This record gives sequence, C-alpha cells and structure tokens, in this order.
Amino acid sequence: MHDYIFTLDFQVRDYEVDMQGIVNNAVYQNYLEHARHEFLKSIDLDFARFAREGINLVVVRTELDYRHPLRSGDRFWIGLRLERVSRLRFAFLQDIFRSPDNRPILNARVTGTAMNSKGRPVLPQELEARLGAPA
Amino acid sequence: MHDYIFTLDFQVRDYEVDMQGIVNNAVYQNYLEHARHEFLKSIDLDFARFAREGINLVVVRTELDYRHPLRSGDRFWIGLRLERVSRLRFAFLQDIFRSPDNRPILNARVTGTAMNSKGRPVLPQELEARLGAPA
Amino acid sequence: MHDYIFTLDFQVRDYEVDMQGIVNNAVYQNYLEHARHEFLKSIDLDFARFAREGINLVVVRTELDYRHPLRSGDRFWIGLRLERVSRLRFAFLQDIFRSPDNRPILNARVTGTAMNSKGRPVLPQELEARLGAPA
Amino acid sequence: MHDYIFTLDFQVRDYEVDMQGIVNNAVYQNYLEHARHEFLKSIDLDFARFAREGINLVVVRTELDYRHPLRSGDRFWIGLRLERVSRLRFAFLQDIFRSPDNRPILNARVTGTAMNSKGRPVLPQELEARLGAPA
Repeated sequence: MHDYIFTLDFQVRDYEVDMQGIVNNAVYQNYLEHARHEFLKSIDLDFARFAREGINLVVVRTELDYRHPLRSGDRFWIGLRLERVSRLRFAFLQDIFRSPDNRPILNARVTGTAMNSKGRPVLPQELEARLGAPA
Repeated sequence: MHDYIFTLDFQVRDYEVDMQGIVNNAVYQNYLEHARHEFLKSIDLDFARFAREGINLVVVRTELDYRHPLRSGDRFWIGLRLERVSRLRFAFLQDIFRSPDNRPILNARVTGTAMNSKGRPVLPQELEARLGAPA
Repeated sequence: MHDYIFTLDFQVRDYEVDMQGIVNNAVYQNYLEHARHEFLKSIDLDFARFAREGINLVVVRTELDYRHPLRSGDRFWIGLRLERVSRLRFAFLQDIFRSPDNRPILNARVTGTAMNSKGRPVLPQELEARLGAPA
Repeated sequence: MHDYIFTLDFQVRDYEVDMQGIVNNAVYQNYLEHARHEFLKSIDLDFARFAREGINLVVVRTELDYRHPLRSGDRFWIGLRLERVSRLRFAFLQDIFRSPDNRPILNARVTGTAMNSKGRPVLPQELEARLGAPA
C-alpha cells in the first residue's frame, strides 16, 4: 500500500456481477474512471466541463493486474497516485483494495494525455500544477 | 413525494452519461435495481444468496416515466415503496429525485415475483412478511 | 407476431448476463435503443447527428413486459412498429423474440418526443413523414 | 496487421458512446471479451458451460493501447491470436481495426489462466491443444 493523494470508497452493485458471480473485468475500468474523475474534480478539473469546451482527456494506455475478484456486496476503495511520464503525458497509478480487510484486488496504471478539438495535445494548467516537472 | 420505506443516495458517474450529455435511459434501471437489492438486504433478503440457492427474484413488468434527465455530477436519491399486487406478485414503486432540490427525475413501477429453479413461483417468507395480506 | 416495419438480429454477449445466468433487465433497454436508432438511420434520421445539432430525441415513458429470459449465446431479433400518440409524441412498439424458435421474450412500448436545445418540442420531418396524421 | 486465427465483425452501438462522442474506454473490454468467448466457442470451449461446471477462465492481466477512438455508427473488426505464456498461462493478442479502412483502433494483450472451484489452476484440454508446447 502506497501513499495515495486521493482515495474513494465504493460498493459492488449486483448488476456489475457476471455469470461467474464476480465483478466483470470491464467494470473495474468504470470504477477506475469514476475515481479519476472524482480526483480531477477535487483539484477543480471537471471532465464534463472540459468535454463541453472541446478539450478531451484521453487514455492512451491501460495496464490492469487482476489480483483477486470482487463479489456481490463487497465494499472496496481505490487509492490514486499521479506520475508525470513526459511533457504531455501523465499516469494514474490506481490500486483497488477490498474493505475492510484491505485485500489487494487490482493494480492499474492508466496513461493519459489531453487534446483539444483539433487533436492537438494540450495540458490543462490545473493538472500541470499537480504533476511537477517532467522527468 | 410519498412516505418511503427505504431510501438510498447516489451520484451520477461520468461513464453513465451518453452523447447527449445525460444519463442513458437504461442506466436508470441499474440504479433502481441496486436500490431494490439494498432494500432487500435491509430486510435480510440477499438477492445473490437467493440466486445461489436457485431462487430467482424476477421482474415481470417495468413502467418508467422519465420526468427530467440527470447529468454528469448530479446527486440524487431513490425512494421505495412496496405494494402487494396478488398472492404471488408484488410491486416496487420507486421514485428518483435530484439532490438537494428534490426535482422529480423518474417514477417507476416494477412488478416482480419469485421462482424456484423449476420455474415454480415461491414467495420468500421475509418478503411475504413485509407485504401484508393480498388485496 | 405483428407486421413490423423494421427488424434487427442480435446475439446475447456473455458480459450482458448476470449472476442468475440470464440477461440483466436493464440490458434489454440497450437492445431496444440500438434497434430504434438503427430504424431511425434506415429512414435517414441519425440520432448522433441530431444530438450534435442540439435536437434530442427523448424517451418520456417506457413499458416493458418480460415474458421469458434470454441466456448466454441466445440469438434473438427485435421487431419494431411505430404509432403516433399525439401531435408531438410517438410510440415505438418493440417485441423481442428468441431465434430460431420465435419464443416471445419481451414486449415494449417506448413513448418519445423530440426537443431542441431550449427544451422546446420539435418533430423532425423525416419522422413526421413516417408517422401519419395525429389521432 | 497479423495473421489472426479468429476475427469478428462489430458495429458501435450508441449506448456505448460517452459524452465525448467516442466509445467509452471500458466498452472496448466488452468487445474484446465477446470476441474471446466467440473464439472459444469456435474451438468447442463454452465459457458459460465452464462457469456452470465450476471452471472459471480468468484474466490475470490486461494491457490496452488506445490508438484512435471509435465513434457512433463505426463498424470495426477484432483479430485474435493466441500465445502460450507458461504451462498454465496463455495470452490473447487482440487488435481492433475500423472498417472498412482498417485504421488501427486498439491493441490488447490479455493474459489468462483457468481455475477450478477450489481456485486450483486447470487448463482445459481443448485450449491446451490449441496452445502448443510451453516456451
């Protein structure tokens, strides 16, 4: 477990569980996205407002390591860290833990960038300020 | 607004919003199902446990009146009432209101029954006890 | 079975199946929406283009009668009819049948209208032309 | 473009498109899962039957490289290759291309294994036969 700059609590909903009785693989990406957008809001960056203004925050690469499945009724939390990858790219390091026993469920690395409506990369200042200098 | 026997708070997640910028119609059924299952748990009826035991709670009819759309970031709550329709059928009356202004969003009537693994109707006692006598 | 003005073939995908081993209730609304949008395209009405132009086709009421569940791997088809409800409202009557035995799965009545970006009702000509005179 | 052992055609459905007007990131995992399950069926391996028998095919790692977004109405296809990673692990290499121009959309590497109901790894013979000797 790391020092996270943002955490969010969740609970599995039954419609997210598949015929194996476990949360479907794709649903974890929904959880992770929701946590990222809530984090962005917490630093005054609204994904929806950006979308309306023609600035799209886009994911270019996702790596997901599935450690243990979540089941109906499970509570869990997501911890988030942020890493600068290059001048225009950043990575969200996101880990899912079951509550309350903190069993590791999933580790993700989500690399993103931001583009304007012409497809040109632009990094919003609010994000820039949180990222630190490029490596 | 009615006297509800169960209420649950929610927040729209961005992946639930479609290209019109509003929550997709089908997503409301997910919200309503989650509220029903949480209500059932609150009276010691676990949908997942029933499914494992071969007793399926099934919806036979759904009526949804869409009053006003939810948007990215909106908070809302669902109120639930229960009504006995016949000896083996019951209806969940579920209303969605935006928070904090309580603007009506959707009214739903979801009629259900319960069946065992052979497709024969069976009404769990826990539910029976909450339903009162058939009309 | 009725005379449908549009039909569309589908196959259940495993991620649409829930812990009961049957297609989740909400997923049928996705199927029905896809069939409506494909029908609209077949009469030169593109839902996505309309959304970009600020004209939103909105559902105001949905009635769904669940007759028999679909399961993993099932093939099925949706038949669609159109009915004028009033000057500005129309209804899609949509029925789902399993293939190839045509077992009835679900009957739906989806009432809609169209609004411009100011929330004023507007009925696109392409749809008007297909609806006939109001009752 | 590689030599694929299995390909499958798709079309974007409007409910899969998010507020940015593009297919939501998580939806690609649904597409990829459906293609894998259809491939498995083509070699007489039914995911649903396995699930009922207590053998779970599980994904342990997913890598997704997003190259270009899909939009409303886009047609596309998925090509699939299979690679043995170790005695008990295999990888699906899956690429998504838009139709008909074959523009690369996404490249995925999905590593999986199979477990019985006690969590012990078991590799179904039908899959073993297709995988060749471990490296």
